[in-house]
Amino acid sequence: MGQTSDAATSGIIIFAGVLGLLFAYWQYKQIAAIPVESRGSGGKGEEASTAAEETARLVQIHSAIEVGAKAFLWAEYKIIAVFCACFAGLIVGLVSWGQGSATQGVLTAIAYLLGCGASVLSGYIGMTVAVFSNVRTTIGCQQGYKEGFNVPFRGGSVMGFALTGLGLLVLYITMLLYVAGGHSGYWATAMDCIAGFGLGGSTIALFGRVGGGIYTKAADVGADLVGKVVHGIPEDSPKNPAVVADLVGDNVGDIAGMGADLFGSFGEATCAALVIAAQNYDLYNNGWCSICFPVFIAAAGIMVCCLTSFYATHINPVTRENQIDVALRAQMVISAALMLPATYLIAVNTLPSTFNINGVSRVRTVTNNDAFVCVMMGTIGGMITGLFTDYYTSTEFTPVKDLAKSCITGASTNIIYGLALGYLSCVAPVFVLAIIVYVSFQLADVYGVALAAVGMLGALATGLTIDGFGPISDNGGGIAEMAELAPEVRERTDALDAAGNTTAAIGKGFAIGSAALVSLALFGAFTARINAKGTTDVQPAEILEPMTFAFMLVGAALPYWFSAMTMKSVGLAAMKMITEVESQFKANPNLLNPASKDLPDYARCVAISTQASLGEMLAPGALVILAPLITGTFFGVYAVYGLLTGGLLSGVQLATSMSNTGGAWDNAKKLIGKSAKDSEFGGKGSDAYKAAVVGDTVGDPMKDTSGPSLNILMKLMAIISLVFAEYFWAINNGRGVLQLPPN
Amino acid sequence: MGQTSDAATSGIIIFAGVLGLLFAYWQYKQIAAIPVESRGSGGKGEEASTAAEETARLVQIHSAIEVGAKAFLWAEYKIIAVFCACFAGLIVGLVSWGQGSATQGVLTAIAYLLGCGASVLSGYIGMTVAVFSNVRTTIGCQQGYKEGFNVPFRGGSVMGFALTGLGLLVLYITMLLYVAGGHSGYWATAMDCIAGFGLGGSTIALFGRVGGGIYTKAADVGADLVGKVVHGIPEDSPKNPAVVADLVGDNVGDIAGMGADLFGSFGEATCAALVIAAQNYDLYNNGWCSICFPVFIAAAGIMVCCLTSFYATHINPVTRENQIDVALRAQMVISAALMLPATYLIAVNTLPSTFNINGVSRVRTVTNNDAFVCVMMGTIGGMITGLFTDYYTSTEFTPVKDLAKSCITGASTNIIYGLALGYLSCVAPVFVLAIIVYVSFQLADVYGVALAAVGMLGALATGLTIDGFGPISDNGGGIAEMAELAPEVRERTDALDAAGNTTAAIGKGFAIGSAALVSLALFGAFTARINAKGTTDVQPAEILEPMTFAFMLVGAALPYWFSAMTMKSVGLAAMKMITEVESQFKANPNLLNPASKDLPDYARCVAISTQASLGEMLAPGALVILAPLITGTFFGVYAVYGLLTGGLLSGVQLATSMSNTGGAWDNAKKLIGKSAKDSEFGGKGSDAYKAAVVGDTVGDPMKDTSGPSLNILMKLMAIISLVFAEYFWAINNGRGVLQLPPN
Repeated sequence: MGQTSDAATSGIIIFAGVLGLLFAYWQYKQIAAIPVESRGSGGKGEEASTAAEETARLVQIHSAIEVGAKAFLWAEYKIIAVFCACFAGLIVGLVSWGQGSATQGVLTAIAYLLGCGASVLSGYIGMTVAVFSNVRTTIGCQQGYKEGFNVPFRGGSVMGFALTGLGLLVLYITMLLYVAGGHSGYWATAMDCIAGFGLGGSTIALFGRVGGGIYTKAADVGADLVGKVVHGIPEDSPKNPAVVADLVGDNVGDIAGMGADLFGSFGEATCAALVIAAQNYDLYNNGWCSICFPVFIAAAGIMVCCLTSFYATHINPVTRENQIDVALRAQMVISAALMLPATYLIAVNTLPSTFNINGVSRVRTVTNNDAFVCVMMGTIGGMITGLFTDYYTSTEFTPVKDLAKSCITGASTNIIYGLALGYLSCVAPVFVLAIIVYVSFQLADVYGVALAAVGMLGALATGLTIDGFGPISDNGGGIAEMAELAPEVRERTDALDAAGNTTAAIGKGFAIGSAALVSLALFGAFTARINAKGTTDVQPAEILEPMTFAFMLVGAALPYWFSAMTMKSVGLAAMKMITEVESQFKANPNLLNPASKDLPDYARCVAISTQASLGEMLAPGALVILAPLITGTFFGVYAVYGLLTGGLLSGVQLATSMSNTGGAWDNAKKLIGKSAKDSEFGGKGSDAYKAAVVGDTVGDPMKDTSGPSLNILMKLMAIISLVFAEYFWAINNGRGVLQLPPN
Repeated sequence: MGQTSDAATSGIIIFAGVLGLLFAYWQYKQIAAIPVESRGSGGKGEEASTAAEETARLVQIHSAIEVGAKAFLWAEYKIIAVFCACFAGLIVGLVSWGQGSATQGVLTAIAYLLGCGASVLSGYIGMTVAVFSNVRTTIGCQQGYKEGFNVPFRGGSVMGFALTGLGLLVLYITMLLYVAGGHSGYWATAMDCIAGFGLGGSTIALFGRVGGGIYTKAADVGADLVGKVVHGIPEDSPKNPAVVADLVGDNVGDIAGMGADLFGSFGEATCAALVIAAQNYDLYNNGWCSICFPVFIAAAGIMVCCLTSFYATHINPVTRENQIDVALRAQMVISAALMLPATYLIAVNTLPSTFNINGVSRVRTVTNNDAFVCVMMGTIGGMITGLFTDYYTSTEFTPVKDLAKSCITGASTNIIYGLALGYLSCVAPVFVLAIIVYVSFQLADVYGVALAAVGMLGALATGLTIDGFGPISDNGGGIAEMAELAPEVRERTDALDAAGNTTAAIGKGFAIGSAALVSLALFGAFTARINAKGTTDVQPAEILEPMTFAFMLVGAALPYWFSAMTMKSVGLAAMKMITEVESQFKANPNLLNPASKDLPDYARCVAISTQASLGEMLAPGALVILAPLITGTFFGVYAVYGLLTGGLLSGVQLATSMSNTGGAWDNAKKLIGKSAKDSEFGGKGSDAYKAAVVGDTVGDPMKDTSGPSLNILMKLMAIISLVFAEYFWAINNGRGVLQLPPN
């Protein structure tokens, strides 16, 4: 039965997961081979420090960041542990009651905890290795571009492969156990429980993106204000107690936050596809391999990305500055190109040649070719979305150049043009998204949308590799600056950082696009579960249903409410950081004495910042979690339909515009900063530069806190609705506890 | 048949229309009774100018503004005439083809032109009288608060009553003629043609809000940049060629633009209700008076507002500064309170006690009491929405005070907190809107939503009166400053202006809320017309229809695209203004000599600014008009469902947040400006004030151009869809010209 046997299915998938973990370990070993203690100095000038002195400074800085990062992680994990335990209890209670089966509640909760655990573990690995790689990037750059490029590239890929490998293995083994446990109904019940895995991933993403986003910007703003503005300490000075928190923040937000976000997307996209697949008799009938189609895509992704990464490190290594950009973009293009034939082979060998999908309002007949097209739309669409983001935020193209010119007439015009740029930048990606949605939906209903999301995340390991590349290089440059290494080292890290900025922007566009697709797929899976109730009082999700439309309005307001909260949170957390720094300066005035060797207590600053950021994320986090729960409990599933639709529609636009506005302001400042004094941009220190700094500061919370956090808002609301679908239905319709008057 | 005879119906409605016009004329006569040429001087200080000199200056400034306003109007009308003629041709062509009846195409086009004409005429009257009232406000303020208050109040009410009276009369007489013309089908065909009237009103609103919005801010920014920054001329100096354009701009944007916007809302809300009512047999069967229920509400509104206005001018006249605010808010509350019993009486006397409404997905049985509740939800909800706007933008409350404090840490924090304030300010009004939608929809389907929109606009004359009050007082103050009158005159105009700012903010909240309700009602009427096709391939508007969802995403991106265009347009139009001013200074260098009596050519500046603004509105205007036409023609009605839903959901949020952010920045600057040097805010000239100016400048295009223009985007897309409904259906489904594959 089926084209691929159960043993072969399990073999291939588990092989890919193990391969990912082994490859991550091998990359880690390559980085670890670079010793921090003994290396040649890159400085050639007469003022170059001796190698021994440099080493001492490097070790000191590196260990401070390491201690800080650990301090953050442990403080966060304690809170996560308590939260997840409570939420697991809620799942057991509500899902058991909603499904009328304690087993399902418990199994969902276990899947949830496994999702949380896998995400936390891969986040821990990724961030630890990123911190480990920072200082080695600096050292690599002392040797040349090839070594300088390879370290952050390998550092990013440890995160990428550890995350995808671990995610795939844990998910697949859970699936095997749950299905073997004998849950019947085309395995639909088992897959309903598996959805908890996606919810777990998304919960950690909430902490990573919202908490991490507040952390990184609060530390950044706090360190800047108290150091440069109040006490006149130079940027990145080791005397500033908050400086390590700032460097840790880069890892927290851009490495751990982005990783958790995309882990969540991966988990949710796969779960959405599994939930829908398991409800369809034709797929069930064709065998286990057909149900596992989305998991196969992830497995193929790991293998493809492994191969692709050799292109940058071995086949065509980077030796000059202008090759960096090309090498990173080549990774994206090659892995996407390889994914297409791989997907086609999987579709042909695992899916029936035609099968029916019970869609949200009709039955569609799907061919395995259609399924391939859906995945392909996601793979190619994601790349195009990323390239549009690149266009609007990179210093190479007109938008940012125009924005930089607008700084000449002051901060006001910079802000007006920057906001307008962000608004405009929504249009093209949203059109791409609309085309993906239309084609995949038309071909295979919500299953098609879920497959498109899976396709967009197919080459996730490569995506994470190049996402991690930027912040690691950035920190490498910061360390070079703090350790006062030769200028050519800093030049090399700057070149890496610039390329990393571009890929970070691409990664953000990608993350938003996949979040939108994932939410829609989850929404579809949710309606499928409600429709499966099959009673006459369940209708399709109509726009002009009073409750639905009213909640569409409410849902569309949520991203605004949420962004207002997160933007204010950054300000408040920064204030707490300033208070802590001031108290350290008061306790030990020697810290402000440049001659003194006293160093501040970095860990306490990191702890304060961690606690403040985790405290500040309480309100926005509660909003995201409670909105669907309250809506579903008290207003029923029609209201949830509206809430999810409204949140998705307004969230995509706001997230895109905020991320791109912030990115463009950042790069406009960089463009002015590195231009000559008599150039059209005015150069560093000019009035135009000051105007650009205003934009950059405004953009910080927009691009690194509020914008990316909206991904979580969209996805988490949808996966919560999916997991609690039967509970929402039962409390309002099924058992009449809170039955509303019929519409 | 029916509780109110046809004769009584016509009698009451026509009486109310005529009453509105007569009342407007009477108010105008009261203002005209104040002579500009001979009056006592308000100055008591030794440096007070003599009355004769003051008069000469006042006359000079006033006539310059008058000439400028006329110059703008005529330039605008020429373009409007050409555009409307072309668009009328398009209507004749497409509607005739879509309906299969040339008569319907022609009648729709005639109704369209009548709507355009009525809106243009009332805009002309309103703006002319506003300009006429400016200088008399200054003179009134020389005498005292009572006289100072009465002039702008009466000036605003001329606009309010002329607009509502004229709108009501033209609409009702067209209805009578079309119905008497013998169109059958429960008069549904006649009312379908009447929808053209709403489209006409909205077309003028496009010119008023978008063109006017670009005009007013381009003139403002242009005058400031070239006058103060480049040549060091003081603000409001008669030597600056652009200063009159700036003053004209206030009238263009805040009087004519707001008036056209609300005229459009009035026309569209009434038309939406009429279209739905005429399709329902029970209402038809009960007689003409039942169909006319929404028109009765408008008629009652005029009478109620007439009565209410005597409260401010006669029963409880303003004699002290602190009474101004109270008097204006009392107008709003009293007229709303009086509307409730009036609506109840109308409902009981014109509607059947119970009737069926064929809703978008089911038949609902509605009582006349339900209809009353729907209208009431709109009336009360509109007031509450306005009060929330007041809370977020007035200097009296915490949000603006906090925003002003954030200026102390610089422009960046001001921008961050301002944006967050705007985002947060969406939440409460959207909840109110959601409740209105839910209740009215649940009671009487989309007919209920249309009635809620009618109810929100019931006391429109009062709304327009207090909306017009602000800009007239503001200009009165400007004239006092330019004519160097005694400081106490400026103090009084400032007090009026401050109260006017608050009411303007309320008016904006109101305009957005009504635009949202109107769009939803029009959307409902559109689906009702499509459903009336009654073929099997027409389904209700489903969220998870591929084409619909894809276009929801596109629709949600349109407000962002549109805002990006309008914000950039302000900048570009301002540049053209600067070029013109520079060329005048070059042609006559005497203009820059303070001793010279030479005055610049104001009219040419006004013409340049008019042309630039009308040119700049081309692209955003085309976007709004073409989006539904292209979508409907090439992608069919399901795509239009999505486009309208997406545009509405994201438009409401963006419009609210932009308007409130801009309003709050403006008032934060005012709060700092009038605070003492050693106060918590820092006072005028402090660094905090400079930071506040940055916010204010950014806010200008947001609150006066992009934000309010989004109302037009929402409404115009919906009314175009309604008018061209049969065409969209025919080209895609009915006659197969562009038939898409079935979903």
